[in-house]
Amino acid sequence: MCGVVGTFGLPTGINVVEATFDALHMLQHRGTEGVGAIFSNGHEFISPAPFRALGLVADCRWAWPAKKTPSRVLVSAGHVRYGTSGEHSLSTVENLQPFLVEAWCGPFCIAHNGDIPGYEALRGELQAKGATFVSNSDTEVIAQLIARQDDAPDLKSAMIKALAEVQGAFSLVMATPTALVAARDPWGYRPLALARLGEGYIVASETCAFDTLHEDRHAEFLREIEPGELLWIDEHGLQSYRFAESTLHQSCVFEGIYYARPDGQMFGRAMDEFREKLGHQLVAEHGRLCDEGAVITGVPDSSSLIAENFAKVLGRQTEIIFVRHHNAERTFIQPGEKNRENGVRLKFNVIRRRVVGKTIIMIDDSLVRGTTIRRLIRMLKRNGAARIIVLIASPPICHPCRYGIDMKTYEQLLAAVLGSDIEAIRAFIEADELRYLSMEGLERVVGDHENFCFACFNGKYAF
Amino acid sequence: MCGVVGTFGLPTGINVVEATFDALHMLQHRGTEGVGAIFSNGHEFISPAPFRALGLVADCRWAWPAKKTPSRVLVSAGHVRYGTSGEHSLSTVENLQPFLVEAWCGPFCIAHNGDIPGYEALRGELQAKGATFVSNSDTEVIAQLIARQDDAPDLKSAMIKALAEVQGAFSLVMATPTALVAARDPWGYRPLALARLGEGYIVASETCAFDTLHEDRHAEFLREIEPGELLWIDEHGLQSYRFAESTLHQSCVFEGIYYARPDGQMFGRAMDEFREKLGHQLVAEHGRLCDEGAVITGVPDSSSLIAENFAKVLGRQTEIIFVRHHNAERTFIQPGEKNRENGVRLKFNVIRRRVVGKTIIMIDDSLVRGTTIRRLIRMLKRNGAARIIVLIASPPICHPCRYGIDMKTYEQLLAAVLGSDIEAIRAFIEADELRYLSMEGLERVVGDHENFCFACFNGKYAF
Amino acid sequence: MCGVVGTFGLPTGINVVEATFDALHMLQHRGTEGVGAIFSNGHEFISPAPFRALGLVADCRWAWPAKKTPSRVLVSAGHVRYGTSGEHSLSTVENLQPFLVEAWCGPFCIAHNGDIPGYEALRGELQAKGATFVSNSDTEVIAQLIARQDDAPDLKSAMIKALAEVQGAFSLVMATPTALVAARDPWGYRPLALARLGEGYIVASETCAFDTLHEDRHAEFLREIEPGELLWIDEHGLQSYRFAESTLHQSCVFEGIYYARPDGQMFGRAMDEFREKLGHQLVAEHGRLCDEGAVITGVPDSSSLIAENFAKVLGRQTEIIFVRHHNAERTFIQPGEKNRENGVRLKFNVIRRRVVGKTIIMIDDSLVRGTTIRRLIRMLKRNGAARIIVLIASPPICHPCRYGIDMKTYEQLLAAVLGSDIEAIRAFIEADELRYLSMEGLERVVGDHENFCFACFNGKYAF
Amino acid sequence: MCGVVGTFGLPTGINVVEATFDALHMLQHRGTEGVGAIFSNGHEFISPAPFRALGLVADCRWAWPAKKTPSRVLVSAGHVRYGTSGEHSLSTVENLQPFLVEAWCGPFCIAHNGDIPGYEALRGELQAKGATFVSNSDTEVIAQLIARQDDAPDLKSAMIKALAEVQGAFSLVMATPTALVAARDPWGYRPLALARLGEGYIVASETCAFDTLHEDRHAEFLREIEPGELLWIDEHGLQSYRFAESTLHQSCVFEGIYYARPDGQMFGRAMDEFREKLGHQLVAEHGRLCDEGAVITGVPDSSSLIAENFAKVLGRQTEIIFVRHHNAERTFIQPGEKNRENGVRLKFNVIRRRVVGKTIIMIDDSLVRGTTIRRLIRMLKRNGAARIIVLIASPPICHPCRYGIDMKTYEQLLAAVLGSDIEAIRAFIEADELRYLSMEGLERVVGDHENFCFACFNGKYAF
Repeated sequence: MCGVVGTFGLPTGINVVEATFDALHMLQHRGTEGVGAIFSNGHEFISPAPFRALGLVADCRWAWPAKKTPSRVLVSAGHVRYGTSGEHSLSTVENLQPFLVEAWCGPFCIAHNGDIPGYEALRGELQAKGATFVSNSDTEVIAQLIARQDDAPDLKSAMIKALAEVQGAFSLVMATPTALVAARDPWGYRPLALARLGEGYIVASETCAFDTLHEDRHAEFLREIEPGELLWIDEHGLQSYRFAESTLHQSCVFEGIYYARPDGQMFGRAMDEFREKLGHQLVAEHGRLCDEGAVITGVPDSSSLIAENFAKVLGRQTEIIFVRHHNAERTFIQPGEKNRENGVRLKFNVIRRRVVGKTIIMIDDSLVRGTTIRRLIRMLKRNGAARIIVLIASPPICHPCRYGIDMKTYEQLLAAVLGSDIEAIRAFIEADELRYLSMEGLERVVGDHENFCFACFNGKYAF
Repeated sequence: MCGVVGTFGLPTGINVVEATFDALHMLQHRGTEGVGAIFSNGHEFISPAPFRALGLVADCRWAWPAKKTPSRVLVSAGHVRYGTSGEHSLSTVENLQPFLVEAWCGPFCIAHNGDIPGYEALRGELQAKGATFVSNSDTEVIAQLIARQDDAPDLKSAMIKALAEVQGAFSLVMATPTALVAARDPWGYRPLALARLGEGYIVASETCAFDTLHEDRHAEFLREIEPGELLWIDEHGLQSYRFAESTLHQSCVFEGIYYARPDGQMFGRAMDEFREKLGHQLVAEHGRLCDEGAVITGVPDSSSLIAENFAKVLGRQTEIIFVRHHNAERTFIQPGEKNRENGVRLKFNVIRRRVVGKTIIMIDDSLVRGTTIRRLIRMLKRNGAARIIVLIASPPICHPCRYGIDMKTYEQLLAAVLGSDIEAIRAFIEADELRYLSMEGLERVVGDHENFCFACFNGKYAF
Repeated sequence: MCGVVGTFGLPTGINVVEATFDALHMLQHRGTEGVGAIFSNGHEFISPAPFRALGLVADCRWAWPAKKTPSRVLVSAGHVRYGTSGEHSLSTVENLQPFLVEAWCGPFCIAHNGDIPGYEALRGELQAKGATFVSNSDTEVIAQLIARQDDAPDLKSAMIKALAEVQGAFSLVMATPTALVAARDPWGYRPLALARLGEGYIVASETCAFDTLHEDRHAEFLREIEPGELLWIDEHGLQSYRFAESTLHQSCVFEGIYYARPDGQMFGRAMDEFREKLGHQLVAEHGRLCDEGAVITGVPDSSSLIAENFAKVLGRQTEIIFVRHHNAERTFIQPGEKNRENGVRLKFNVIRRRVVGKTIIMIDDSLVRGTTIRRLIRMLKRNGAARIIVLIASPPICHPCRYGIDMKTYEQLLAAVLGSDIEAIRAFIEADELRYLSMEGLERVVGDHENFCFACFNGKYAF
Repeated sequence: MCGVVGTFGLPTGINVVEATFDALHMLQHRGTEGVGAIFSNGHEFISPAPFRALGLVADCRWAWPAKKTPSRVLVSAGHVRYGTSGEHSLSTVENLQPFLVEAWCGPFCIAHNGDIPGYEALRGELQAKGATFVSNSDTEVIAQLIARQDDAPDLKSAMIKALAEVQGAFSLVMATPTALVAARDPWGYRPLALARLGEGYIVASETCAFDTLHEDRHAEFLREIEPGELLWIDEHGLQSYRFAESTLHQSCVFEGIYYARPDGQMFGRAMDEFREKLGHQLVAEHGRLCDEGAVITGVPDSSSLIAENFAKVLGRQTEIIFVRHHNAERTFIQPGEKNRENGVRLKFNVIRRRVVGKTIIMIDDSLVRGTTIRRLIRMLKRNGAARIIVLIASPPICHPCRYGIDMKTYEQLLAAVLGSDIEAIRAFIEADELRYLSMEGLERVVGDHENFCFACFNGKYAF
């Protein structure tokens, strides 16, 4: 998973470099491996290569040499990258985006959220025509495809032509020294939103990135980029193009369940409301499991809103039983599985007095590997909890994601490995009871579910 | 503020270096400027100087050269230090503890939580007798005072004699190559707790540090070190000495209100229960302000438990309206006030849909400078909140702390600067209403309040 | 200027990673800005991107993660890059080589010594055909030109075809996972030599790189790569191809005068002997200036051999008057002209007793900017030298180099700026007398001078 | 070995911080483990702790935060420390000097060159009186001894009293915020020199440190500090005190043979002249070994002057056969013996053509471990040298040094291990012949040899 951001022509008084890093910081949950950004002064990019650094935005941003910041930044583009867990030692700055190329139409750069299934074939075709690649990423393939539209009169046309050829999930922020470009694949897998601040614009994966741009006012959220739409923003203003028909919408439901921050809008929904509805539906399906004396809690922080509404519908209250360490993330920076497990141990602690002898209703948004929740359950039992009932606010995840979520193999999915055997999953995570939300329940929460991708739950891939 | 930890003779199978860093990580909230630790193999300290590094435990601990860890660590001592805000650029590794000296009785080291008011006089006396100091810390004064007990037969006696001479707040963890020592001033200002794991012992500022020592079992909390008590733990076991009469107990009430993590015990109390009672008392005093449609929320995370119980007593529920960024702390690492303010902006965001047009009951544990809450209030208003009622779960802080909390001058205390004028404070923080808990209410929550120090509220200093 | 190195199939028992860094260390004088290297295990390159680091080999090499070194390294390629002085702050790791691309024929990488005049045109042509570039270097142009030979049956043929199209100075080391390739432009501007060690091969810019490969034996110098030759070395052995006619040889005479280390062979000559002859010729032309009591000295270390032979022919001896600091180079790591001047001050000191009242015959190989020698002359005068006669063992440098030496503009050449006015140059450097070697004298030293490029002296560029 | 430097009241226009680092850079050969420095603005030291950093001056100095430099620096003191080879991994910044203490007389700091044999006893005595130590260094013992002169009226008197009690080798630079102090032990083991620049003063271990202070003029060398003398320099000028009788002078002859740079004065001698005389005497004793066709060379750079004069007396010339790498020192920064050996391999290369079939007269100043010269000899033989005659310009080193040179055990001295058996030493270093200078010869070179310490040659220790 990744996060992308881009700005054009932000009002005087805003330090665009800082604003771009702030926005990336707000997207940090979408990728923690590394950060990249590029800035233009209206004539050229102001560094020969994009700024790129491994680590968190809050740590890396100070590496930007402030004195390089020009008096005016016209265009910026930035990216946070998700690091495949367990291989962190292989992280290299070379993998970070935006990806910058010099082509016949001058330099441009791309920041990409999504995945292009089978991009290797496209890459091979280009190589056969003499193209060389300096990375293994699908992003570079898109870049070269754009550059190769030699019958296109200009870069904009080349982008429109090239993107029409790409079958895959992509929310792109592209930048030239004079223009900001945003585009979203015809299926609309990944989010991408547009806002205005004064005369300027900002696009970002999530709308929370619009909220920190300015001390005293938010950027005004305008709308989401449409599936199949390319927005070209330059000194002549904002122009919208449709590079492909969008007949089948496939927005990622897992964004709503887990990934998206609750303080924003995505796919036409308020994300906090979406979580509330998950809690609501969870009551409808499994509320009766919740005895009088049971403690209701969400796995912090991602499931807190779901749990809050679950309790509310029941006329109950959630109780805080886990204390979360604010700086525990850092533990993951060292590689290896041992550290991941230590991570849980060092990240959460239990308030013993609140769980001793109690039945705990533990609500989580989803269950992927199952190792984290198992550790939490063990922790609760070691602290004297009598009985642990786990409610998962989505169905079992049985299929890998081809469109950008870091669940790429069957092996890493507990429900896939255990053949969707709920009892086996329950035994693995060492809970006393385990319930999932039903597929129908999730569809009900979503509403127009035919416009969403549920492939990780039901294996129905669009391609 | 600081946190201290020490271990002796932990069972085989535990990597004591890792366990010590884990424990320090659990005390991270007590100090984020830097970390120090020392380890003994039973014969000598295994590094010529203590390990010391500026930054968070999770970041710094990797700097310890793992290959240096001997097969057995008998004694360890560690410290996290609080950095005085705004002067972070002056942080130097030299200030970090434990402080190690070589004296007639061999090497020993000290990690200190607390403050010795007027230690400069004591330092001057020692200098006049020929002592040299390599730092400005009160900790070094204690070390030299111990070394100077030349009529004491051994280090233990010297410590007992020396500590009797010190008037101040100190919870100390001291280590020699063969013994772990814990001591607490006769007033008991700062916490210090003892636990056992197998045949071994661990002492720490807070009991949450006992919970991560071992994968499968907690260290067993035994008791707190008594005011005026010195514990000497070596291969002959644990011995307790009383180095001074303890006629006046002065445990710091602010630890309970704000500092202490809720997942532990301190001053004979469960800290989560203490916070619950604050919520309870807050209802008793100001519950009527809470209209039907009002949103009840605590400033995350420190006030969440207070707010939870406040709502519960009213038969209501708290609502999540702030999204807290998990990696925002890092922002503070850069120096200066501007960054502190940015910190709030980048740390919290508001879920707009949940506050628009609403009355917000915002509960905070205490109000020191008032700048953070003002920024949150502005953020709520910018998101459309109709009315903001702030309830503070403690009385106005009008006096600096002499005993270890980083509130050292009147200038930095909003209530002191504004002469306890509640209306002026309300105007400053830009709330619509502001209520504090009464002094009597706080005393009722505390119970045996004569054993506690309330100096920051009432100016009654023991010395 | 740069240095390149490559190895293939070095004998078991040699750590190829270490050996490659050792060889690059020996070429350090050819470039101090940064280092790059890549290694193959016989199947693939063992890191996703080349190792690249700014700084000296001796400093950077430790950044290579030793545990990454596989049990066998089949192919290696490395590069040291010259940093344009004064702009060191603009150094970025992105500029470092080898340059790695993935093409239809798989991955290959290029390390390049030399310059391609007018490569921008070639780059534009490729861009017009849809190529994208990620750097501004001529090296990437060569890489893409190779990849674009779509009618070539394999990479080897593509290289041979592509290099035939390039008009420029290039000594290339290229690597694939299974083959080492060395090639030299048809004019032979830059050196490139081949050696054998056991069954393996090594190519390098200078033969001194062959001397440190093995504790107990040197690699055996076989020959230089011929102008217009491409060597392909793989498991089937060494094959030689001629990719272009080589009718005009243009070996760089400045390599012999200044750049090349004296402990090697280049362009069919022993470099120490070449310097001896320069000293010899200098006597022939200016020996009479050397009075009885004059002190003969060379500017250390580059001119020491010239001075030694100058003295010898006269039946005299050089005298040590400058003490050179061994670690002064580091001073240049900070950017800017001020530091360059400080560099001289901190790098050399004068043994006062040996120069007071004396006439100094100061021999230097060449005179480019004149600032360093002026500073040395001032230093001598401040120490009481009576008279300073400067003898330059080459003619005035009046023209920039187009073929790889870092003398790219007229402005930086003192003789060009002062219109070859020897008296003006003498005044600028503050010497009492100044003599250059004549053009004829230099030609005599060179011997077959029609095979050499003297463009920096006479402005006769081949293209 | 170490180097010390101090300045007082340097003229306006000189950046004292830069000047102090420059001076330390000139003393780099006396210690490469780390650097320390402290600066006063005339009222207080301008950093709470001395600047200290591991590594070379040229690398470390940039870590000084330039913005901290005040407009005026009144006093500075600096130190370069020698790192015991092979244990480099144990280097810690804690060992670096100057050592700063706060005493009754205010803060002062000490930078020390030399060794105090048996300082542990003195340390024990102080500890018995209640002193605590934070390091194991003899320097801290001196500091505390000074602080403990409680009947002294002021710091100056305390220094004078305390130093009279110390039996050992010490050249000290001490600083207070308002005064610079220089002192030398009564035996005068280590050098310490004084110079003036304008109204200001500078003291340093070697006079070469005076030569880089100012662009256009040297500091004027005034004299050496006398054995048993303490110089106190403050705003009232320079005052000289004699803290002890100096009846037996014991200047270290090894400084003259090896350590001291040749571009300076020490112990009343010009160091280049001293080296010339060694060459002269070497001819007298072994000149007949030098056949007509033999190549005379010195091991660069330390023996170059000896070899130059050896050749000159014989009417011959030295020849350059070794090429020394300018950045090879860095190799030693990684720990361990293997790297030390690699160091030689990467530091020197041989110009083969100049040694093939030749007899080499290889002159070295001294022979300590013998491993470096053995490696050079092997290198010469591998390059075809016919016969290697080694001439050592000093007698066999058979005894450790107690006074500051890093030859502290018999085990590390080849001549001691082999019982002064010259034939065995020759065999070990693999030379064809080996000759040492005689003890009488060395005494003749020295002149007033009764004023010098020859203990490493003859075992006659003063204490």
